[in-house]
Amino acid sequence: MKIQLDKKTLAEALALLERVIPSRSSNPLLTYLSLALPAAIPDGKGGALVLTGTNGEVDLRLFVLPSGREPVLGSGHVLIPAAPLAQVVRNLPGEEVLLEVEGELSLASASFQTRFAVADPEGFPEPLFPEPRLRLKAQDLLRALTHVRYAASNEEYRAIFRGIQLEFSEGGLRAVASDGYRLAVYDLKGAPVLERSAKLVVPARSVDEVVRVLKAVASPGDSDEVDLGFAEGTLGLSLAPKERPLGVRMAVRLMEGEFPDYERVIPKEYVLEAEVEADTLRESLKRVSVLADRQNHRVDLFFESASPLGEAREGRLTLSAEGDYGKGREELPVRASGVAMTVSFNARYLLDALGPLEGPVRLRLSGAQTPAVVSGGGEGEPDGYLAVVVPLRV
Amino acid sequence: MKIQLDKKTLAEALALLERVIPSRSSNPLLTYLSLALPAAIPDGKGGALVLTGTNGEVDLRLFVLPSGREPVLGSGHVLIPAAPLAQVVRNLPGEEVLLEVEGELSLASASFQTRFAVADPEGFPEPLFPEPRLRLKAQDLLRALTHVRYAASNEEYRAIFRGIQLEFSEGGLRAVASDGYRLAVYDLKGAPVLERSAKLVVPARSVDEVVRVLKAVASPGDSDEVDLGFAEGTLGLSLAPKERPLGVRMAVRLMEGEFPDYERVIPKEYVLEAEVEADTLRESLKRVSVLADRQNHRVDLFFESASPLGEAREGRLTLSAEGDYGKGREELPVRASGVAMTVSFNARYLLDALGPLEGPVRLRLSGAQTPAVVSGGGEGEPDGYLAVVVPLRV
Repeated sequence: MKIQLDKKTLAEALALLERVIPSRSSNPLLTYLSLALPAAIPDGKGGALVLTGTNGEVDLRLFVLPSGREPVLGSGHVLIPAAPLAQVVRNLPGEEVLLEVEGELSLASASFQTRFAVADPEGFPEPLFPEPRLRLKAQDLLRALTHVRYAASNEEYRAIFRGIQLEFSEGGLRAVASDGYRLAVYDLKGAPVLERSAKLVVPARSVDEVVRVLKAVASPGDSDEVDLGFAEGTLGLSLAPKERPLGVRMAVRLMEGEFPDYERVIPKEYVLEAEVEADTLRESLKRVSVLADRQNHRVDLFFESASPLGEAREGRLTLSAEGDYGKGREELPVRASGVAMTVSFNARYLLDALGPLEGPVRLRLSGAQTPAVVSGGGEGEPDGYLAVVVPLRV
Repeated sequence: MKIQLDKKTLAEALALLERVIPSRSSNPLLTYLSLALPAAIPDGKGGALVLTGTNGEVDLRLFVLPSGREPVLGSGHVLIPAAPLAQVVRNLPGEEVLLEVEGELSLASASFQTRFAVADPEGFPEPLFPEPRLRLKAQDLLRALTHVRYAASNEEYRAIFRGIQLEFSEGGLRAVASDGYRLAVYDLKGAPVLERSAKLVVPARSVDEVVRVLKAVASPGDSDEVDLGFAEGTLGLSLAPKERPLGVRMAVRLMEGEFPDYERVIPKEYVLEAEVEADTLRESLKRVSVLADRQNHRVDLFFESASPLGEAREGRLTLSAEGDYGKGREELPVRASGVAMTVSFNARYLLDALGPLEGPVRLRLSGAQTPAVVSGGGEGEPDGYLAVVVPLRV
């Protein structure tokens, strides 16, 4: 088999695979990359190089289309260690690379030639990709995942909260994450509707891989779409970017079970509403929290406003913190309505909740000890992001 | 005491100090930063804020000159934890900061105010800075240090080779580093001459601090100069950049002893001389060495040229390597004279030796098993860089 490829595309495909493929494993075959040139492959991409790797949780397959004038010849299938191949391809001198398998794998690019020893593909786990059932804009899916990712738990014992729940329903697609102390929800309105509703929980670490791959492969505009499918505990994604000589398929193992009823922690009524610029609040929180207690990162927010709820007025928000090193304090302009009050937050949790937001943000407080809600303010995004943060008990 | 300062300058001074000051120490006073506003200080910088920190090996003092229209008032001296102060200053909202000590240390910048608890300066080690004896361009000193730094040993047991030797003599200043397996020498020609010659060995880690400080503080042009002095096992450096509102003093503890006679490892006669572009050779070494043995990183260099020494002709240099994964090979154009030969190097050592070089480089071989010399080629730099690399025994 013989195929000429664009060096940059091949290097990028290998870099994505290198991240997924473990450098060591109890099954040594999993540390290899499967490299195949099939006689013909699904979705019409005949004659593309097919690179596949897996970490047992995520299967990743990249199709790299031929470049240049050299014809694609023959077919074949070998295994090769992923890391050295990726490193060689990154450093190739030319813009094109001629890849050939005949006993060994040889690469030639400008003045450089290399031959890699290969292994037999027998026994390499062949991934199963569920059939597509739904098509979304790649950037929409990325936005939903990246808005809520921070709220998922990193603790081994948090079980289901180490995943991100995707809810397909008549309303569209919702992504939810929580670690039991805070909650983030993103509603993708106008997403295509499935014939019946479904809830899938994707491990957060696998979500990171999906995000990495989509960011690298999908165009930043709205033109590229992802096909989603699910079957037998697996979420499948596929993407064929319109303007690039490559394609992607992923199969992601799902977690068992679903989130407990999280909607009950979202307050229905508020006693204070405030609007402030995301960047202004974020920068101030960072400054003031340097002085905060190292354990709970407590920052007190004092809202002086006292107009009836819904009749917002210009007022002041005072942030203050005190710890071993000293005290910090800053006043910010804010538009607020409702009762004047002081509420204390772990600055990190509040910063996380503000993380995905730009421009005006809305803070809604249900009380000094009961959940607060952070969301986009003004005439913001059409889709809905909402974060619940619980104040510190002081 | 009260002084108004430029936030960026203060933040930069604190960042430099934060790197030197240890985050923990058997003497807790060393984790503090000394902050003083003397009534009058040496070298005419009266009325500047004086910030001092030490790690026991390097004492670093920064003078930050006042900015803005606020007068400098009073004098004082306190200790304060370095890390939180640096972090707060980095994040200040305004361009100016008003610093005041009265019981506590308070900082005000735009809408933000903070107060830090301070400690008594009693017992803080007051650094001694040797009197200046020699003035050099800051960029010349930087160049000498950064050309040889890589060759110093990181191994605890290499004793003197963990330092960089500075030799002051009639010929100017020479910097030398070695780990016993390779050697780097940089001659700063035309450097001012001392009344008598001297050899100082500066610990490589302290050299890293000196380099970091000079790079941050000295202008990239030739205008800023460093005063050097030495006394009682200490090297002193001071620098007052012409166009910035700050000044620096450093006192660096020297190592005892001096290097053994390293000149005997520099070959006097060669059997092959070759000239090649630094970047071309570097990139090729990186590619080919991916395939090399993981232990010794062996790359073979075959020079085909066979014209009498000194009568260089266009020829080819072939790099090749072979390891567990496979083989790599590349041919490069080279101008060479002398015998045709193959010589094997640890690719990392050769890459290190090429590190400081741009444009044409000269390789001089004394034999396949005897030391080789790497230096700048063509009509290169006026100063002299020379690296000795010993071939692998194969």
